[in-house]
Amino acid sequence: MAVIFPGGCSMAGSSFGRLFRITTFGESHGSGIGVVIDGTPSGITIDAKDIQKELDRRRPGQSPITTRRAETDRVELLSGIFEGKTTGTPIALFIRNREYKSSDYIKLKDVYRPGHADFTYEAKYGIRDWRGSGRASGRETAARVAAGAVAKLVLKTRQITVTGYTIEIGGITAEKRDLAVVEKNAVRAPDIEAAQQMIRRIEESVGEKDSLGGIVETAIRGVPAGLGDPVFEKLEALLAAAVMSIGAVRGFEIGAGFSSARMKGSQYNDRYFVENDRVRVLSNNAGGVLGGISTGAQIEFRAAVRPPASIAKSQKTVDTAGKTRTIEVEGRHDPCIVPRIVPVIEAMAAIALLDCLLVQSAYKSFETKR
Amino acid sequence: MAVIFPGGCSMAGSSFGRLFRITTFGESHGSGIGVVIDGTPSGITIDAKDIQKELDRRRPGQSPITTRRAETDRVELLSGIFEGKTTGTPIALFIRNREYKSSDYIKLKDVYRPGHADFTYEAKYGIRDWRGSGRASGRETAARVAAGAVAKLVLKTRQITVTGYTIEIGGITAEKRDLAVVEKNAVRAPDIEAAQQMIRRIEESVGEKDSLGGIVETAIRGVPAGLGDPVFEKLEALLAAAVMSIGAVRGFEIGAGFSSARMKGSQYNDRYFVENDRVRVLSNNAGGVLGGISTGAQIEFRAAVRPPASIAKSQKTVDTAGKTRTIEVEGRHDPCIVPRIVPVIEAMAAIALLDCLLVQSAYKSFETKR
Amino acid sequence: MAVIFPGGCSMAGSSFGRLFRITTFGESHGSGIGVVIDGTPSGITIDAKDIQKELDRRRPGQSPITTRRAETDRVELLSGIFEGKTTGTPIALFIRNREYKSSDYIKLKDVYRPGHADFTYEAKYGIRDWRGSGRASGRETAARVAAGAVAKLVLKTRQITVTGYTIEIGGITAEKRDLAVVEKNAVRAPDIEAAQQMIRRIEESVGEKDSLGGIVETAIRGVPAGLGDPVFEKLEALLAAAVMSIGAVRGFEIGAGFSSARMKGSQYNDRYFVENDRVRVLSNNAGGVLGGISTGAQIEFRAAVRPPASIAKSQKTVDTAGKTRTIEVEGRHDPCIVPRIVPVIEAMAAIALLDCLLVQSAYKSFETKR
Amino acid sequence: MAVIFPGGCSMAGSSFGRLFRITTFGESHGSGIGVVIDGTPSGITIDAKDIQKELDRRRPGQSPITTRRAETDRVELLSGIFEGKTTGTPIALFIRNREYKSSDYIKLKDVYRPGHADFTYEAKYGIRDWRGSGRASGRETAARVAAGAVAKLVLKTRQITVTGYTIEIGGITAEKRDLAVVEKNAVRAPDIEAAQQMIRRIEESVGEKDSLGGIVETAIRGVPAGLGDPVFEKLEALLAAAVMSIGAVRGFEIGAGFSSARMKGSQYNDRYFVENDRVRVLSNNAGGVLGGISTGAQIEFRAAVRPPASIAKSQKTVDTAGKTRTIEVEGRHDPCIVPRIVPVIEAMAAIALLDCLLVQSAYKSFETKR
Repeated sequence: MAVIFPGGCSMAGSSFGRLFRITTFGESHGSGIGVVIDGTPSGITIDAKDIQKELDRRRPGQSPITTRRAETDRVELLSGIFEGKTTGTPIALFIRNREYKSSDYIKLKDVYRPGHADFTYEAKYGIRDWRGSGRASGRETAARVAAGAVAKLVLKTRQITVTGYTIEIGGITAEKRDLAVVEKNAVRAPDIEAAQQMIRRIEESVGEKDSLGGIVETAIRGVPAGLGDPVFEKLEALLAAAVMSIGAVRGFEIGAGFSSARMKGSQYNDRYFVENDRVRVLSNNAGGVLGGISTGAQIEFRAAVRPPASIAKSQKTVDTAGKTRTIEVEGRHDPCIVPRIVPVIEAMAAIALLDCLLVQSAYKSFETKR
Repeated sequence: MAVIFPGGCSMAGSSFGRLFRITTFGESHGSGIGVVIDGTPSGITIDAKDIQKELDRRRPGQSPITTRRAETDRVELLSGIFEGKTTGTPIALFIRNREYKSSDYIKLKDVYRPGHADFTYEAKYGIRDWRGSGRASGRETAARVAAGAVAKLVLKTRQITVTGYTIEIGGITAEKRDLAVVEKNAVRAPDIEAAQQMIRRIEESVGEKDSLGGIVETAIRGVPAGLGDPVFEKLEALLAAAVMSIGAVRGFEIGAGFSSARMKGSQYNDRYFVENDRVRVLSNNAGGVLGGISTGAQIEFRAAVRPPASIAKSQKTVDTAGKTRTIEVEGRHDPCIVPRIVPVIEAMAAIALLDCLLVQSAYKSFETKR
Repeated sequence: MAVIFPGGCSMAGSSFGRLFRITTFGESHGSGIGVVIDGTPSGITIDAKDIQKELDRRRPGQSPITTRRAETDRVELLSGIFEGKTTGTPIALFIRNREYKSSDYIKLKDVYRPGHADFTYEAKYGIRDWRGSGRASGRETAARVAAGAVAKLVLKTRQITVTGYTIEIGGITAEKRDLAVVEKNAVRAPDIEAAQQMIRRIEESVGEKDSLGGIVETAIRGVPAGLGDPVFEKLEALLAAAVMSIGAVRGFEIGAGFSSARMKGSQYNDRYFVENDRVRVLSNNAGGVLGGISTGAQIEFRAAVRPPASIAKSQKTVDTAGKTRTIEVEGRHDPCIVPRIVPVIEAMAAIALLDCLLVQSAYKSFETKR
Repeated sequence: MAVIFPGGCSMAGSSFGRLFRITTFGESHGSGIGVVIDGTPSGITIDAKDIQKELDRRRPGQSPITTRRAETDRVELLSGIFEGKTTGTPIALFIRNREYKSSDYIKLKDVYRPGHADFTYEAKYGIRDWRGSGRASGRETAARVAAGAVAKLVLKTRQITVTGYTIEIGGITAEKRDLAVVEKNAVRAPDIEAAQQMIRRIEESVGEKDSLGGIVETAIRGVPAGLGDPVFEKLEALLAAAVMSIGAVRGFEIGAGFSSARMKGSQYNDRYFVENDRVRVLSNNAGGVLGGISTGAQIEFRAAVRPPASIAKSQKTVDTAGKTRTIEVEGRHDPCIVPRIVPVIEAMAAIALLDCLLVQSAYKSFETKR
């Protein structure tokens, strides 16, 4: 059978951001995963521990309900930091992969795993790195988290924080928004009771050799009014691009999002009022952004996360020769990626926001001097 | 009262795309709205009528349920086309604004209209064009539609089509997907019965001096496998950025989208099979994209559209001096923007897709010659 | 004869700049020439007269030694300015072309004029706008000058000036640098005696039905230390790209330039000293840039300008059928483009410099707040 | 004394290219130097030896007239290559720095070395990595050479070659262009006799504790007509930006370059003729580019290289406290960087050219299918 591929082409698209710009590299089963961060303001204190802390939040094996692969994910600082501070030059971070057995993957070498990018990479490039998922592996997000840790440290100098949390897994929704408990439960839910139910649901799913999806909400606080650039670089467009570029994310909404489709204008419009000489909004259906520009209110968005593609349950598919095959994806895969995707979404949001802050600072500087 | 603005800054962000790149300009009440399209392949036949046809689909006053402002929106071709064909040089299109009475707007000059970008533009730029909504006006999308018409003509040479349609307005959902009727009803729904109910709901809303939101679905057909660039320029990330950059859009989802959050992996994964020597998918929960790269299946996404901010109903807000004001936004505003946003979403999707096609063609060319 | 072209492709590349970004469009014999300027800080006073003044410096027919074509080149402001000030939104400027007789060009329609881009455009695009030189015409630079006028107005708020002048034409060199006389002689030389000789040389050249080249020097004053971004966006690299993108420019050098190749390190190195608590340089062989970053000294560069390709002298060439043809390019062409290219070079330098200033301002803003 | 710096800002600008895009990182005395190459077509055979070979051509200590520092510069492939072939994913290359004694530099820690970027980096970033020249070190170019080696391998599949050679050092010029001898003499001159004189001149210069500059010419062969994108991304503008971004380069000219300023149009214009059904040029004053687009003739450009700033001769300067200081820059510095800059210029030219080839391929693909 002839599968004619249009491909043989290459990847561009490993960079994100304008003034704060990251470029990632590396595959799940090569030497490692890395990132070059260009455009960090100079003089910012960076401690490798702060980066490591974020990587540990994304790390496999951190709780019984994630994959039991024990990746240590030690970050190495290759450049851009001198005497503990950023110099303004590119910061390169590298996370070496652990040793692996390619025998784990060799048996699926010629199969197009459902839900995975095997077929599309082969269609695009005419070639496929069949060890793990190559560049399409979730492991690629470690580089994003490392870069996001740097962005967070810069944002911190302006009192801006980015916090993600799980509001739904397998149909169970968090009713509360108690951010104090988020990092204290394995699913990162802001509602302890819901968290327990979510964990149980995940355990059931493991028993069924299946996997689960969910929804992550993110709140960004301390954002000044004025960030985001009309018309194509609206803040919500940049955040959407940032978050939808994470493999498992299938939907993005800001503020009232999809439910705004069912609201009337009189319900949706956030009313302004004045408090302490500052213009504020009573409600926040806009999610902190009007006309693509931040209002100064909390920015709030949600991301839909699909269930992991790798399941132990038997699935039918085809191989590269076009033959029907039945596979069971072995290995220690996550039954639900939602808790581990939280730091990835935070990282991407922090990167996009810092970029907007830098762009805005450029133009803003002209006002004071005029 | 002192409203201290961080701003005085400028707009960047009026361009979209990599190899097929558009740059828009113009405000709702200045000379007009325009776009420069850079990167159109040469030798493509472009008829001004094809562009005009798309503009007419977006035009105000096209049906009783849209605004009754009668904008003619005549497109003028300023460059890039010679003897009816593209030359490869930038195509500039311009749509002159009709005359307007600034008296319509002068009374709201000092008021922050709820749901509008008055406050945020002033925060960002320290200055605001108070005639209409300036650059934040929906009128800006006319330039996108004109550029999208060019993108569609190029895609047509490859048998790729982009079709948008309304699947929900004011809580009423289309049950069918009969694309043949879409352009035959005022709300562009693919279900005649639902369309009639939607129209009635809009009419009710007008009576209530209120406005309505809805959901638009878009199907892209004929897309080859292999488009989209990992990892940050995934096809869904580019489509999300393209669509979320339209002012009224508050959410984006691809394939199963938010509902995938409630699915199990065994339900979500699309099964491969072979038909006529081609690898295909049985279901399409992925919406035609795996790992950020097109599978060759139909691309399908949805956008949530909020209700228009301008309503005749009385609303409380504040003015630039910080005083509470009660306003009723007069004028002939759309009670529901959904039907008119359909061609805008199509345009942005066509532009993003053509851009991906060009990028892919660059790398692909190396395969055949190797 | 088969001339096989690799082409059929399109132009990208009509944009220049990062935060201050211009996009030009238009051909010499279409509707007109225009530019969209994105990223102008808001609140800057822009008077159409200031733009017109720069266009008049570039205008054909301004003196007996330029082409006698009487182009009025009236600039029209299409967007981005409200009540005399920039709003931060894109500024679109348009210059309508005068009427022309295509009969002037139809006889050269099938000929590849030596020194012109007829052959290469046809090779690239598979199609050619044979009216004048289409997009490759010097007329395209009118858009750059208009955009440069805006950049100059912004730079003026920071006391930065960009001044170009002719230091060589047809082998005659200016010995003085008396900038006060530059705009007072037809060749824009900073040396009245040399200017008179240059004018005579140009007149002789007209008699010989031939054309002449020359060298333009540019001085940028008031530049703060710190502009330019290592390593690929060094200030001299951006200036070189800006200036070498002007059709007739064939060489670029900064500071001592090519003569630095014949200097010893001990001669070349500019010695530092301190004056009024500021670090300064005694000489300026570096041309105001070290390591790609401005030193605070005057930036000084030179551009080599080739003789115009259109000459009345008889020339042999080939046509599209591959036949040898003898042509005399009629029409009122410039015998030497140097005087009219001065404002174009200034414009490109101003655009590049303002862009660097904005980028620097972005990062700089973090220092004060840390 | 108060040296007030405008800075505290960061570096952007570590990336070059559009579809073939490199991002470099690393300082002379940190962990190492690296590059991420995004956009390499898939399926290209890459042997680490080919990269190493180019690095060896740039390597210090390769001949008696270069610095005697013995850097081995071993390249490590971190990603993007699988089973000896490119996969289309980003290729990361890393060259670890050898151990160094910071004591070598600590004594110059507070001094602004003449000709070096110490002062400007401090002005820009408010901080300086005083070990060596940090990011401004010539060592940064190792990353460019590694990336250029990859570009050359891709260009080779299309029979395009890039060859640089020294045509002038210390005032001695090469009279011949015998490319066969270039890699056989220590100065990389295409003229053995001139090479011997150049070497002698360099040796004299060492005796004088001084340094020398020179000129490098580069020839690119096999380039198809049609590369380069009007109007700002003209081939010569991209090549100029690429080459002028190399620290020591102070001038760039293409074809007749600065000498075209002294030519008449009738001399300058290259005459077309037809040979074997192909349109060709008799002379090549244009250097292979007309209107910014390649003609198909050999591309030929020259770069002026200044003498190295580090000299053993005693020099006066100031320190960060504003005091006058006399310094002698110790260490094993190159007396003339010209021979070692040849592979760097080749690398940048190869990267720029491959990028243009990919862009052109994108649009070109539409012609054949129309």
